[in-house]
Amino acid sequence: MKKFVNDPKQFVAEFLEGVQLASGGSLKYEPKYNLIYRADMPRPDRVSIIQGSGSGHEPAHTMIVGPGMLDAACPGDVFAGPPVEFVTETSKLMDTPAGVLYIVNNYTGDRTAWEMARELCEAEGQKIGYLLVNDDVAVKDSTWTVGRRGVAGNFFVIKAAAAMADKGGSLEECVRVGEKVIANVRTMGVALSSCTPPVRGTPLFEIADDEMEVGIGIHGEPGRQRTKIMSANEVVDLLLDAIIPDLPFTKGDEVALMVNGLGGTPISELYLLYGAAHKRLAEKGISVFRSYVGEYCTSLEMAGAHISLLKVDAELKELLLAPAEVAYRVF
Amino acid sequence: MKKFVNDPKQFVAEFLEGVQLASGGSLKYEPKYNLIYRADMPRPDRVSIIQGSGSGHEPAHTMIVGPGMLDAACPGDVFAGPPVEFVTETSKLMDTPAGVLYIVNNYTGDRTAWEMARELCEAEGQKIGYLLVNDDVAVKDSTWTVGRRGVAGNFFVIKAAAAMADKGGSLEECVRVGEKVIANVRTMGVALSSCTPPVRGTPLFEIADDEMEVGIGIHGEPGRQRTKIMSANEVVDLLLDAIIPDLPFTKGDEVALMVNGLGGTPISELYLLYGAAHKRLAEKGISVFRSYVGEYCTSLEMAGAHISLLKVDAELKELLLAPAEVAYRVF
Repeated sequence: MKKFVNDPKQFVAEFLEGVQLASGGSLKYEPKYNLIYRADMPRPDRVSIIQGSGSGHEPAHTMIVGPGMLDAACPGDVFAGPPVEFVTETSKLMDTPAGVLYIVNNYTGDRTAWEMARELCEAEGQKIGYLLVNDDVAVKDSTWTVGRRGVAGNFFVIKAAAAMADKGGSLEECVRVGEKVIANVRTMGVALSSCTPPVRGTPLFEIADDEMEVGIGIHGEPGRQRTKIMSANEVVDLLLDAIIPDLPFTKGDEVALMVNGLGGTPISELYLLYGAAHKRLAEKGISVFRSYVGEYCTSLEMAGAHISLLKVDAELKELLLAPAEVAYRVF
Repeated sequence: MKKFVNDPKQFVAEFLEGVQLASGGSLKYEPKYNLIYRADMPRPDRVSIIQGSGSGHEPAHTMIVGPGMLDAACPGDVFAGPPVEFVTETSKLMDTPAGVLYIVNNYTGDRTAWEMARELCEAEGQKIGYLLVNDDVAVKDSTWTVGRRGVAGNFFVIKAAAAMADKGGSLEECVRVGEKVIANVRTMGVALSSCTPPVRGTPLFEIADDEMEVGIGIHGEPGRQRTKIMSANEVVDLLLDAIIPDLPFTKGDEVALMVNGLGGTPISELYLLYGAAHKRLAEKGISVFRSYVGEYCTSLEMAGAHISLLKVDAELKELLLAPAEVAYRVF
């Protein structure tokens, strides 16, 4: 296994400790619940924004805890949703009179944990908001999902909701803008390789040297089809031809355009895909308001990429431009 | 070849076009010289900071053009230094009465191009400063280098020199702080896998499933030894045991600590290495002033990592904390 690990069973605990140590004190780490949270939160007058899915998708979500993004994240093990207890403890720790917003990706394991935690916390008098992210247009229903999967579009939901919270928005307003993002964001990806979870020690799936998986899930779930590797331009066309009609995005729309790396693809290739997507959109009269190129939601060291489009209006543009600061983007 | 490419020969040109398109107009691209530069530069009263090495090390250097970092970058092809003409044209484009600072990594191809360009540009009356980065402690002399290689420590040289330029420092002052960084930064890395340059289409070197290369170069140059894969903690000890005595870093020192990914290693593993390094330094009485975890200088999709330590004083601390903004770190 070509990885930097000690005991594979301690992989998540050890990298979370690294996240805390690298933060210079701005983040705290509670090992009992895999919990990374802002040292300066919660605040009684501000909605708290929390998330937790499987580990293995870093920087999502433990590395995007910080001002303007998440207030706390409580992942499970690699590719496993967090236990209910992790969520309830995180929810209590971030509790404020303004309320706590749960942002959940649409996987059965995640939903079970977060929806059960919501019931428990509401029964104890907490004010909870709930957003379910399902931006992946590749397939309806999947290995671990009823309905569509939540993938890289998740980033925009967090960004908009956190910016609204920072503006002093109520829990209802944070939910409203989050739902607006969910209604307007669409994503699809391709994988060129599999990935190897540390405890498992072997690749999640087999894929031939000349093949790619179109519509891959971020836990290696099958997509729409297995094909021969295509050129970068063909990949972009394939993805945009699935994404654009789905909303649909149409001439005159302004969008945020994300090319998200799945972990093992160099950023040079992501920019190459970005250029092709940007030009293809321009041909269709769709203009890019803001671009996002890099790793936002990964699948360990999988080679591959997502394209996400978010149709923006004046409100979403303002929220996307709000300041944010996370520990791993140091320059 | 598991890559997002069209024509491999157009790989660099196509990703550079993507960099420009993603910048929202803040960067310009001159295809004739592989040149990415700030649209708002040069300014007559400010030193310009430029660099160009082989492509394939992204985000270095074309993706770190922006306020507080480089003013322009002119890479060659993948793993090939830029032609002299690229450098002279970049130098002329960024010429100011305050002067132009060349930051060069110690590879024979790069030095040849930049030193020849310097002579040509000085002969035409340009004021040129020159910094040679050689932070890699792994080996003295290498496949493409006489002396030590320049690797991830490069980032700190750029950051300090650009911050000094932004403060209104003279060319001499920018050179002085750059040399201070070079005198105080040390790096070493290990590779778990090779990488595949697009035009070549095959891996640069063979490495067995249970092996790693200690002291790897960023173009696949051999390091100190080929060993069996070690645990993450052992890797950190091995690297720090080479880096720390070299300066030496000693009890009471404050350092910037970078864990740089080589392209194919997930950021979770980088944070795991970071945690181990941070704790090891604490045991030795060396405290971390600021941490840098992620991809700063890569080797395409190589799995592996560098550790860099920069000993800081009050001046370097101030320069490292100066603002910087680059196109690919959008949140």
